[in-house]
Order: sequence, then C-alpha cells, then structure tokens
Amino acid sequence: MDFVLFLIFLGATFTAGATGALFPTGPWYQALNKPSWTPPNWLFPIMWTSIYFLIAFAGARVAPLEGSHYAMAFWALQIALNALWTPVFFGLRRLRGALPIMAGLWVAVAGATATHFALDLWAGLAFVPYLVWVTIAAALNLSVARLNPNQQPLEPSKIGI
Amino acid sequence: MDFVLFLIFLGATFTAGATGALFPTGPWYQALNKPSWTPPNWLFPIMWTSIYFLIAFAGARVAPLEGSHYAMAFWALQIALNALWTPVFFGLRRLRGALPIMAGLWVAVAGATATHFALDLWAGLAFVPYLVWVTIAAALNLSVARLNPNQQPLEPSKIGI
Repeated sequence: MDFVLFLIFLGATFTAGATGALFPTGPWYQALNKPSWTPPNWLFPIMWTSIYFLIAFAGARVAPLEGSHYAMAFWALQIALNALWTPVFFGLRRLRGALPIMAGLWVAVAGATATHFALDLWAGLAFVPYLVWVTIAAALNLSVARLNPNQQPLEPSKIGI
Repeated sequence: MDFVLFLIFLGATFTAGATGALFPTGPWYQALNKPSWTPPNWLFPIMWTSIYFLIAFAGARVAPLEGSHYAMAFWALQIALNALWTPVFFGLRRLRGALPIMAGLWVAVAGATATHFALDLWAGLAFVPYLVWVTIAAALNLSVARLNPNQQPLEPSKIGI
C-alpha cells in the first residue's frame, strides 16, 4: 500500500473527524431526550477514530486498482456528508434537518462498501464497521429527533454581533 | 463521460455547498471589518456553484483513468476541507481557527489541480478557477482575521439548553 496515498485519505477522514472536536457534545446534548440504547459518550470517538483509519486504508488500497472510479466517487461523497452532519446537528441543532444528511451518508457508505468489496476483499471488510455504525447513528438521530420535537434550531448568523 | 459518476461527484460538491445555505452570512458577517477588495456578496454563490460543477466534471473525467489514485485522494481531501471551512468560520466564528483549514484546502486544491492536469487537460483546466478562488478566499480569511482581532468564537454546545 502506498503510504503517502494513505496519508492523504487519512487527512480527509481527520478533516471530517475534526468536527467532533470543534462541535463537541456539552450540556445541550446531555439534556436531550435519548433512547435507552444510546451508546455511551466514550464509545463515539473510539468508533470514529477506528473507522477513519479503516476507510483511509480501504481508499489507499482501492484507488490504484483498475475500475475504482465508482469506489472513489462514493468515497468522496461519504466524507463530504460525514463532515457536514456534525455541524448541522451540534452546531445548528437541526435534529430533523440532519436526517436527510444521515440518509445520504448511509447510501454513500453502502455504495462505498459494495464498490470496495467488488475490487478488494480487505478494503470491503474495512468499510463494514462504518456501515454498521452509521446505521446505529441514523437510528439514534431519528430517535432523538422524535423524542425532542420542540427543539429549536440555533441560527449563528443572527446571534448578537 | 459517465453521467452517473458525474452525479455522485456533484452530490459531494453540493454537500459541501450546502454549508453556504445552512451557515449563511447575516448581520454578524456584514458587521465584520473587511478589506476594501472584498468581493461582493452576490459573487460568492455564483463562483462556488460554477466551481462545484467544474470539479465534479473533472473528477468524473479523471476517475476512470489509469493512475488517477493521487488525483482521487486529493479530490476527496479538498471536498472534506471545503465542507469544514464554512461551519468553522460562520458557525463558530473562529476567524483564526478557520485559517489552517483554508491553508489545508489550498494545498489540497493545488494537489488536485496538478494531478488532474497530469492525466487530462480539460480536467486540469476545470480546477483552475477553484485554485484562483481559494487563493482569494484565503487572503480574505487572513485579512478578516487580522481586521477583527477581538472577535470571540461562538460555542454552540454552551448556548442555553
């Protein structure tokens, strides 16, 4: 595997992951109604960090292979959607507005998983934890949106100058 | 050109572009001190929309070519950084914190431009407006950060529950 290529893909995943540090959980998130099966807070950074390494590895394995164009397009789509979700949910508090982003992310990750599997077994396997985790995240987003129907969005552009 | 492939790349660019609608300019941005050469507000969506179509076209042209792995890695990196910048600048009001993201974006776009040119003339040319615009955007970010040294960041996680 080309290590420089891996590092560029890792840069993309850590860019998306930076949203977790920039838009942290806090009193607002803690106070939201959440389903009983909500994963504990400490599990999120562990899962995301693992996933980011795994999919950077998958991208670096598949990118040089012939016929990787759909895999690369889905790889790019999933990382853009991944970077967008956190600011919308935690930054804008748009619990329902984050749902179509999560739905798009699920489709992009499913597409990436399938197209990586088609080219390389290990790359496909590296996407599986992501697909599982994003399924859980989507269910959590949907449940939190339902359990907090009166949550008002934040509008940063209108907050005191 | 594979039109479905183009649409997947376009989905990635429009995901990054959605940050412009989700984190709009408003009274806060209007009130910031800005350099005299700041482009007018109406130019930004025109430039970004054009750039998003152009780089989706570039990605779809280059992805199926042999040896496109670095081009695809830079393509993914630039779209993740592009999606991150707006929430950090407009959502968190981190004028200085947005600078390393902008610097990374500039490097990623420069890398994408060079690697696309190496494979396909039209794809390389399609990245040129992006490289020019992100250079202007970086200069504007730097200037705005210098002209508003006392701007305090927003911390959405700590705003009233």
